[in-house]
Amino acid sequence: MDKKTGKWIPDLKDIQVAEYRIEDHVNHTPILTSSTLNDMTGGELFFKCENMQKVGAFKFRGATNAVLSLSEEESVNGVATHSSGNHAQALALAARNRGIPAYIVMPDNSPKVKVNAVKGYGAQITFCEPTLESRESTLEEVVERTGARFVHPYNDPWIIAGQATAALELINEIEGLDIIMTPVGGGGLLSGTALSTKYISDGTKVIAAEPVEADDAYRSFKTGKLVPSQDPVTIADGLKTSLGDLNFDIIRCYVDDIVTVSEEGIKEAMRTIWERMKIIVEPSAAVPFGALLEKKVSAKDKRIGIILSGGNVDLDRLPW
Amino acid sequence: MDKKTGKWIPDLKDIQVAEYRIEDHVNHTPILTSSTLNDMTGGELFFKCENMQKVGAFKFRGATNAVLSLSEEESVNGVATHSSGNHAQALALAARNRGIPAYIVMPDNSPKVKVNAVKGYGAQITFCEPTLESRESTLEEVVERTGARFVHPYNDPWIIAGQATAALELINEIEGLDIIMTPVGGGGLLSGTALSTKYISDGTKVIAAEPVEADDAYRSFKTGKLVPSQDPVTIADGLKTSLGDLNFDIIRCYVDDIVTVSEEGIKEAMRTIWERMKIIVEPSAAVPFGALLEKKVSAKDKRIGIILSGGNVDLDRLPW
Repeated sequence: MDKKTGKWIPDLKDIQVAEYRIEDHVNHTPILTSSTLNDMTGGELFFKCENMQKVGAFKFRGATNAVLSLSEEESVNGVATHSSGNHAQALALAARNRGIPAYIVMPDNSPKVKVNAVKGYGAQITFCEPTLESRESTLEEVVERTGARFVHPYNDPWIIAGQATAALELINEIEGLDIIMTPVGGGGLLSGTALSTKYISDGTKVIAAEPVEADDAYRSFKTGKLVPSQDPVTIADGLKTSLGDLNFDIIRCYVDDIVTVSEEGIKEAMRTIWERMKIIVEPSAAVPFGALLEKKVSAKDKRIGIILSGGNVDLDRLPW
Repeated sequence: MDKKTGKWIPDLKDIQVAEYRIEDHVNHTPILTSSTLNDMTGGELFFKCENMQKVGAFKFRGATNAVLSLSEEESVNGVATHSSGNHAQALALAARNRGIPAYIVMPDNSPKVKVNAVKGYGAQITFCEPTLESRESTLEEVVERTGARFVHPYNDPWIIAGQATAALELINEIEGLDIIMTPVGGGGLLSGTALSTKYISDGTKVIAAEPVEADDAYRSFKTGKLVPSQDPVTIADGLKTSLGDLNFDIIRCYVDDIVTVSEEGIKEAMRTIWERMKIIVEPSAAVPFGALLEKKVSAKDKRIGIILSGGNVDLDRLPW
């Protein structure tokens, strides 16, 4: 039980165990730097490349930890979730690696490329209408029918402990970070990052960046009350979800600030990272650097770690 | 004097001196791996990311070595070259870093983005007609007028020694490589790579890959006679040039094989690297991996180092 949040949240040991548990499955992703981007911001930036993680996103860390944390008995009927995005692929591959079934509920308007990727990992897909209600009721049916265990994309301590390992690697490799930045959608990556930082690098500030068009985490953080997001329209499609309550409790207590970034700023940040660093990041991953470009956070003379959350982009539909 | 080629070519010391000379200027680029690409080819692939080199290409190594090798007296009037591509930017930045002028002759149909990049590094541009004759005669005028020293993009021992440092880093970091692959255009990268490999990892084979539509190096290598390229049409725009004679002598003696790749194979390789590795490479850089995809070289159970030569792509004009 954590005193500040009043909840059971992952402690350092849980995160270290997660790191050990998943290490043979996940990529130990590289940390890249760019003198051009340093010059643009006045800081020294260290990009933790979770776009190069398996399935192209940090999500695979949490999903792998969650799947491997299940007992034999708990895992025998497989795992299930609803997701149109990176968590679907992450859970499908994590389940396949353990040799258990995965049942994924996907909205029937999901991009074909994502549906095919999930199928490619051997998961069974059930389509639903593209509403939260339909996703949840369809998932309930699937779980009832199969006995599979629901793995929430972010509101889950094992998921949080898994996502926390990205920051653990970053902090262990780069000394003296003044700030660590992540984007925030459901809050899995941010809450995990906040915990790792608090446990092993307490002097480092944790600052999240969110699209101004999907600023539920920002508003929740500023008011202290969990505000759900309402059909936000943003290019950063990974950041549309509302915060989980467990995530919010951790964020409320252990994150230093949340800032917002315009759509133009996100696009400019994304294109700058592609052109100058020669790496492919999805719009969501570009939001923290966008916050530096828009001077929502001053990088001047600071050492800043940025977690590039993912790189899954449809190369036939680029935003420029 | 090298016995096999009968010419003065860089020895190991020249390459090591080049490495030392340029180290504060160039990026020590990362070496990335991908289990997906390993699975696709059956080998273990190590990608040396010169797409993440300054100016986005290995060319900056050679240009920096050439510029820094000049004596005070030789350098005082600056350097000059003709190029529409990466060498222009590389020489411009290398000259700026040394604080000497750079004069670049560019065809008047060069992409605006490249012209602006060269201007951005402070070089003086002289436009010419887009023919080799016009490029050479214009360069001659510029050199005569300014007293600048011509730095050839590849047919130059200092350039070759500089390009050789990429393979030096690769070999020093990855043990037991069976093969090292590069693309081949003018032959600067390939000849440098062949020398580094011969000097410090003699058991490693050096194999180059070339577009089948621009196969002058392949034909030169197979016949033993330098065949110039004639207006080739290929997506791999960095590989259209003819081999230099010094490059060819080194390649003839120290390269194990050259293979060719179809345009479709190059495109597929490029897109696969973007989608799976989440890094941006230009078409030329994708040619060696294309050779593996087309089974021109068997990767089965081999450890293969691949030098990704560059990442300069117009994001508004992608080949898909």
